[in-house]
Amino acid sequence: MIGSPVDTFKGISPAEFFYRNKQMAGFGNATQALYTTVRELVENSLDSCEDAGVFPYIKVELNQLKSDAVEVKVSDNGAGIPHEVVPDAFGKVLFGSKYSSRQRRGTFGLGVTMSVLYGQITTDSPAIVHTKTDSKEGKQYRVFVDVETNTPLLEQEKTLHRKETGTEVSIILNGDLKRARDRIIEYIELSGISTPYARFELRIENELQLSVGPFVNNLPPLPTIAKPHPHAADVELLRRLASTNPHAKLQDFLIDSFQQVGVRTASRFLKFSNLDSSMQISSLSRENLVYLSRSLQKYADFDRPSSDSLSPIGKEQFLKSVGSHYQTTSISYSNRGPLEWDGIPYIIEGVLALSEKFPARDVPHLFRFANRVPLLYNNSDDVFAKVLKRISWSRYGVDEKSSVSLFVHFCSTRVPYSAAGKQSLASVGSIEDEILALYRELGRRLSKMTQKRGQTGRYQKKRREFTSTFKLLAKFSSDLAGTSEVPETDSMIERLFEGDMDA
Amino acid sequence: MIGSPVDTFKGISPAEFFYRNKQMAGFGNATQALYTTVRELVENSLDSCEDAGVFPYIKVELNQLKSDAVEVKVSDNGAGIPHEVVPDAFGKVLFGSKYSSRQRRGTFGLGVTMSVLYGQITTDSPAIVHTKTDSKEGKQYRVFVDVETNTPLLEQEKTLHRKETGTEVSIILNGDLKRARDRIIEYIELSGISTPYARFELRIENELQLSVGPFVNNLPPLPTIAKPHPHAADVELLRRLASTNPHAKLQDFLIDSFQQVGVRTASRFLKFSNLDSSMQISSLSRENLVYLSRSLQKYADFDRPSSDSLSPIGKEQFLKSVGSHYQTTSISYSNRGPLEWDGIPYIIEGVLALSEKFPARDVPHLFRFANRVPLLYNNSDDVFAKVLKRISWSRYGVDEKSSVSLFVHFCSTRVPYSAAGKQSLASVGSIEDEILALYRELGRRLSKMTQKRGQTGRYQKKRREFTSTFKLLAKFSSDLAGTSEVPETDSMIERLFEGDMDA
Repeated sequence: MIGSPVDTFKGISPAEFFYRNKQMAGFGNATQALYTTVRELVENSLDSCEDAGVFPYIKVELNQLKSDAVEVKVSDNGAGIPHEVVPDAFGKVLFGSKYSSRQRRGTFGLGVTMSVLYGQITTDSPAIVHTKTDSKEGKQYRVFVDVETNTPLLEQEKTLHRKETGTEVSIILNGDLKRARDRIIEYIELSGISTPYARFELRIENELQLSVGPFVNNLPPLPTIAKPHPHAADVELLRRLASTNPHAKLQDFLIDSFQQVGVRTASRFLKFSNLDSSMQISSLSRENLVYLSRSLQKYADFDRPSSDSLSPIGKEQFLKSVGSHYQTTSISYSNRGPLEWDGIPYIIEGVLALSEKFPARDVPHLFRFANRVPLLYNNSDDVFAKVLKRISWSRYGVDEKSSVSLFVHFCSTRVPYSAAGKQSLASVGSIEDEILALYRELGRRLSKMTQKRGQTGRYQKKRREFTSTFKLLAKFSSDLAGTSEVPETDSMIERLFEGDMDA
Repeated sequence: MIGSPVDTFKGISPAEFFYRNKQMAGFGNATQALYTTVRELVENSLDSCEDAGVFPYIKVELNQLKSDAVEVKVSDNGAGIPHEVVPDAFGKVLFGSKYSSRQRRGTFGLGVTMSVLYGQITTDSPAIVHTKTDSKEGKQYRVFVDVETNTPLLEQEKTLHRKETGTEVSIILNGDLKRARDRIIEYIELSGISTPYARFELRIENELQLSVGPFVNNLPPLPTIAKPHPHAADVELLRRLASTNPHAKLQDFLIDSFQQVGVRTASRFLKFSNLDSSMQISSLSRENLVYLSRSLQKYADFDRPSSDSLSPIGKEQFLKSVGSHYQTTSISYSNRGPLEWDGIPYIIEGVLALSEKFPARDVPHLFRFANRVPLLYNNSDDVFAKVLKRISWSRYGVDEKSSVSLFVHFCSTRVPYSAAGKQSLASVGSIEDEILALYRELGRRLSKMTQKRGQTGRYQKKRREFTSTFKLLAKFSSDLAGTSEVPETDSMIERLFEGDMDA
């Protein structure tokens, strides 16, 4: 049998690709699909609130409908979605506002449309989007995805009053609410940790299950779009930059196109690479373009990337959110960066904390975040988890009696997710080494703190004993005084043990 | 700041998506990119040979060019690629012949184009494709990818004589040949195990490094395209099927559209779901369509899927390739299936073998395959590896002195890869339970064998002692006889220890 008589060659749309490979986008089964839908909607809402420069107030509602269908409703007080882009934003895979080089939670223009797609293939229901931007009236849309062509199908569009700007999206999908519940709660709790200026509410069947944050009352500056770093200059990027600026001479081209390249750096680089600074970029031969690309990627003397396009949680806010939420007994913060992988800027920051609320184990419990998004699935394969295993935690005084957790946040204009479902980070460039250095630094800080007051376990035991004794004393005093009002002792304990917060 | 003044909404092409997220497609760094390129070309070549019905003869050549560029050249004796599709097949992401529901190595129409893309962004070189189908003259093409639009750029197309049908592809890319070498060798060796009727040759810098197979001299039947199983009937699939057959009555529609549904099954199902068999499929209300979809997915009495669309390695061939290549001292085979995940048919088969060539460890060394493709990266997160840890191997006599390896092959019309790089399998449906059952069965067989002749470790030690004693005796005899020719003893040992091959 010659030729390929049984198969025909054809192209498929990206929506079709992810429809066939749902597990790659985080929709591998009904539990995960529900979780991912909540997550994608919350992330979009948070991004939208930050664009609007407001303190995010995110409400999540989950309702079990008849049979296996679950309604997910997420609303925000964000900027609203411009009316002309609503259909594409919800009905077209690989469409979005997140492709510019600044840190955002969403990145692919994939997740929400996948949620719409999953909803429609399991319950035949459209996404219902009610949104209002500042300048317009509120409108409500009912959107489907045409999977084969990757285009939106707008079932209905109508004016519907909405008082404030913002968006409410509701999606009905096959889902297992019982099984997904705990993950969703954990996701929202951890979102409060990484976006400590936001307020989250979760309602299930109209009952408030959870309210998190805000832990702080100041907004971080909005990250700005940055030019690429010269280490990112592969041939494709060079060509694109050259096509927008074809007549520029090489030196000016470098200064205009890249960050961290001024007159001095450009001329030093051109000397190093032996290229003529007065050549027009568009007149470079193919060979020279490859040579320029390679030289830019290799040249070691460019400054580290700017951090303007990044939005780390930050020392004060990270310590505050973890410290308050988990009532930690000691806590420290460290960070690395800005650094770059393939020219893409990133910062890693971490908090190592002790609290009775954490399980006692000989390795810190790991909480992972990327661009402020908690990552809850696929933790074994993740580069953060991999590095955790490379460290002898006993050296830093962590033993089976230690209740230690490690919160680590990777932020970047492009997070190297292993798959489109954004569950884990691939080990690219020198990221692994930097994570190792961060963990070690946090370990040393922990070690110092625990040495100061003896063994971690012993310290926590002592604090527990103090707490219960004080509570007894308080109870005893109020009994003596004949009042039912028991004085509050937590703050006294806090004061007695303060100074242990080393950051 | 209201609105989203800094970002604009836009769509990106799937090529752009994977260009930005190269790590998802297996191109995270120069070592992995080189490995993935070899792999994608070899897989396409093997698929093409099977379409042609010939014994595959695959030649891989790697040459280090100046600077960091490596040339990868892979040639086959397959069916050749129809001239009209060459540009799209190499220059368009999500285009291919692999979307029909039968087992193939390639599945996404992604890998080869990603290799071309990676080559061009690192070395500005096109893919060079020289191919001949049965009916045409040979032609050579030079192809680039237009990343932003996801369309091929054909630099050159010329008639170039080629004697036999088949294809030779060469791609030049930035790559680290030294670091990738061992992985590539392992990949080709293992490809010989899973495609035991093929012959592979690897040349590096024009020197033959490796020649593997064939281990057997018969071809398996070509898997055929199958209708979907009714458990796969989500709303999207139902709509598509209905649109090709709109006037069919419900009962006929089910029989025509799905496998494992005959008159009796259809009428039993319709009775169970309380649907009127004489209704036209296109007249079903939305609600009824969702109900039909859910009922089809839930109904437990459909037969298991047919295995016609699958091509497992098979007992005899799998035992033969592993047995010969690793000179195993004992070996057994087992399989599970055909089964289905979300209605997609699959078979899992495994070989558990003892050989001095395997490292001694208290857990079997794991070799993973999917649709005959060896999976070498991301093994910690894989469902195969996850299940391996759930088993107490000591119960089956495996201890730190055991040199045991487990070869496991998942074959399906759609493999649930975790990411587009096809490195690991997601845990979907009941796959995990089935793998567990397979491992246990293989464990029991091993246990039986080792009980028969005592402890595994002891057995291997005995065999080692025999081997060295015989070699000494042979040397001694030839010295006595005054000849330098030492008699061959391996086959004597083999005969002495035979009968241990339990399968």
